[in-house]
Amino acid sequence: MPIEVLHCGVCHSDLHQVRDEWHDTQPTEFPCLPGHEIVGRVAAVGEHVVKFREGDLVGVGCMVDSCQHCESCEAGLEQYCVEMPTMTYNAPDRVTEQITFGGYSQSMVVREEFVLTIPDGLDPEAAAPILCAGVTMWSPMKHWKIGKGHKVGIAGIGGLGHMGVQIAKALGAEVTAITTSEEKRADVLVVSDEAAMQAAEKSLTHIIATIPFGYDTNAYLQLLALDGIMINCGALEPLQDGERAQAPDGFHLAMGRRTLAGSIIGGIEETQEVLDFCAEHDIAPEVQTLAMADINDAFTKMNDGEARYRYVIDMASFADVDAGAATKLDTPAK
Amino acid sequence: MPIEVLHCGVCHSDLHQVRDEWHDTQPTEFPCLPGHEIVGRVAAVGEHVVKFREGDLVGVGCMVDSCQHCESCEAGLEQYCVEMPTMTYNAPDRVTEQITFGGYSQSMVVREEFVLTIPDGLDPEAAAPILCAGVTMWSPMKHWKIGKGHKVGIAGIGGLGHMGVQIAKALGAEVTAITTSEEKRADVLVVSDEAAMQAAEKSLTHIIATIPFGYDTNAYLQLLALDGIMINCGALEPLQDGERAQAPDGFHLAMGRRTLAGSIIGGIEETQEVLDFCAEHDIAPEVQTLAMADINDAFTKMNDGEARYRYVIDMASFADVDAGAATKLDTPAK
Repeated sequence: MPIEVLHCGVCHSDLHQVRDEWHDTQPTEFPCLPGHEIVGRVAAVGEHVVKFREGDLVGVGCMVDSCQHCESCEAGLEQYCVEMPTMTYNAPDRVTEQITFGGYSQSMVVREEFVLTIPDGLDPEAAAPILCAGVTMWSPMKHWKIGKGHKVGIAGIGGLGHMGVQIAKALGAEVTAITTSEEKRADVLVVSDEAAMQAAEKSLTHIIATIPFGYDTNAYLQLLALDGIMINCGALEPLQDGERAQAPDGFHLAMGRRTLAGSIIGGIEETQEVLDFCAEHDIAPEVQTLAMADINDAFTKMNDGEARYRYVIDMASFADVDAGAATKLDTPAK
Repeated sequence: MPIEVLHCGVCHSDLHQVRDEWHDTQPTEFPCLPGHEIVGRVAAVGEHVVKFREGDLVGVGCMVDSCQHCESCEAGLEQYCVEMPTMTYNAPDRVTEQITFGGYSQSMVVREEFVLTIPDGLDPEAAAPILCAGVTMWSPMKHWKIGKGHKVGIAGIGGLGHMGVQIAKALGAEVTAITTSEEKRADVLVVSDEAAMQAAEKSLTHIIATIPFGYDTNAYLQLLALDGIMINCGALEPLQDGERAQAPDGFHLAMGRRTLAGSIIGGIEETQEVLDFCAEHDIAPEVQTLAMADINDAFTKMNDGEARYRYVIDMASFADVDAGAATKLDTPAK
C-alpha cells in the first residue's frame, strides 16, 4: 500500500544508525535512509487491502513486517518476533530482500498489517513521535501494569521521556522526572544533585529509563523501593558509564530485590492503543518542525540534549532540497 | 537464648568478609568471626522464651535481629528490613552495640525470633548449609513462583547452586546446570562451550546465578526466552567480567524484554520453609566435614571452585585448636 509521507519524527536511533554506533548488534547498511515515526496519507489501495481507503491519514512506526506466525507475533508483540521483525529501515525486506528505507522520504510502500490509523483529534505532525517514542513508553507501562499507587521515575527527559511523563500521569501514577540537564530543572530530580538523589533513595516503584547511551545504572537503582523495577528503553549498548566500569552493582540489585529489565518499542496493537490513548487523553509530544535541509543541525542538537523535545521533518520541505544533498547525512568517516 | 554450636557451614561470603572484599558496601570490622550456617543445641532458655526448650536442635542463619516492625519485617522479609537487619557477624548488635560474632565458635546467644527449628529427618551437619545457601535459592524461587512448566538454569554450581538444582527440581521445574568448570561437566552447560551456549539461546525461563564475584552477565542473558528472568544471588560487586567492561548490554535485555534482578538470602519464615521443604523432599547439600584447624585450606579450595560442595566445620574439632591459632584466618595485609 503506497503512502505519501507528510511528517517524519527524528529519533535518536536514527542518529545511532546513521553513525553506525550499533555496529556490533545492528550494523548499518549504507546508503541508509532513516525515519520510523511516519505520518502520511494512503495514496492508493490494492484490491486485497481491507483496513484502509485512499486518503486515510495513517502512521508507520518502527516495523514494516514480521513472520506473523510465531508466539510473539500472535501475542501482538511483533517487536519480539522469533524470526526478527523487519525494521522500517536498514533491514532486509521479507519480500524484495532489499534493504528497507525509512520515512525521511516522500513516499513508501507498507503492508497494511503494519499501518496504523491516526485517530481524529490528533494533530498529524504531533502524532508522528507517538509511533516510536510514544509506544516505547506505552509498551513497558502496559506490561508492568503501571497505574494508580505507583511512583514512577522517568529518567532522561527527551523525545521518549517527555512522552513517558505524560502517559504515566494519565495512567494514574505519581511521576518524577529525572534528568542530567540542569536546564530542564523544574520539579525534576537532577542526577548530579547528590542531596536530592539521596533524599529520593528507595522512593520509587518504577523507573523507565530512556537515556540513549550507556550510563551508570547504580545512581538510578538506588532510587527504587523494595521490589522496584527499572526498565531500560533507550541504550542498547553496555549499561555502564562510558569507558569507565560502572556496571550495575549486584549489591544495589540484591538490597531491595530490585529488577533491571529491558523493553524495546512496542507491538502493532500496542501502537494503535497508544495513539488512541493519546487522542483520548489529549496527550501530545512537543514538536519542533524541521526542514529536511536542516537535518544535520537537528542531529547535533538532539545528541547534545537540546531538542525540546522532538524534531519532526515536514516533508513539504523536501522540495527545497536537491536530490544529491538530501542523502548527505553526517555519517562516520570510513 | 544461648546455643551450643555443633556445625557451621563455610560460605563464600565468609571469605569475602574476612578478606574485606566488600569494603565499599560492607567493610569488615576486625577482629572478624564469620559463620552464618549454624546448627546447634539450645543450652538454656530464659523465662520469656516460648518456642524452644533446652536441648532442642536449632539453626541460625544470616541474621540475628532486625527492626521487626517495618513493612519488610512484617512481611517476613527481614533481609530487606528498612532499618537494615543485624547480620550474624560483622554488624553492630542492636542490644549490646558491639560487633556481632558468627558461628565459627562453640557457643552464641541469639533471640528466639531468629532461631530456626531443625526438622526431624534432616541430618544436623547437612542442615547447616540450608540456613544460607538453601534459603538464598529458596527465597527467589518462591518470589518468582518457580515451578512446573519453567525451564530454570542454575549458573554456578557450588554451595548455593547445587542446592538450587535440587530445590528447583523438587518444585517441578526442568533444570539446567550452568558452570564454567569443565570438571563439573555431566549434563550441564559449560559457559566456554560456544556451540552449546548458542544452541541453548532463548531456551530458559529463569536463571538463578550464584556466581560469587563479578561476571559477564551477557553470556547468560542470551539464554533467556521472551520475558525471561535472571536473578543474581551471588555477586554483590559490579556485574562485569573482572576489570573488563562487560556490563549487561541494553540490547540483550531489550531483545526479549528480559529482566536482571537481585535477591539476597531470605527471611526467617522462608528459612523455616526451606528447612521443612528439604526434610520433606529428602534434599540435602553434599557436605565435607572440616576441622577448624583446616579452615584456611578450605577457603583456598572454595575460592578455586574445588569444594564439593560445602565445607561444614565440626565444632568438636575446636578442642584441637589452641585459642590463639583459631582466630588466625588469612586476612588481607594492611
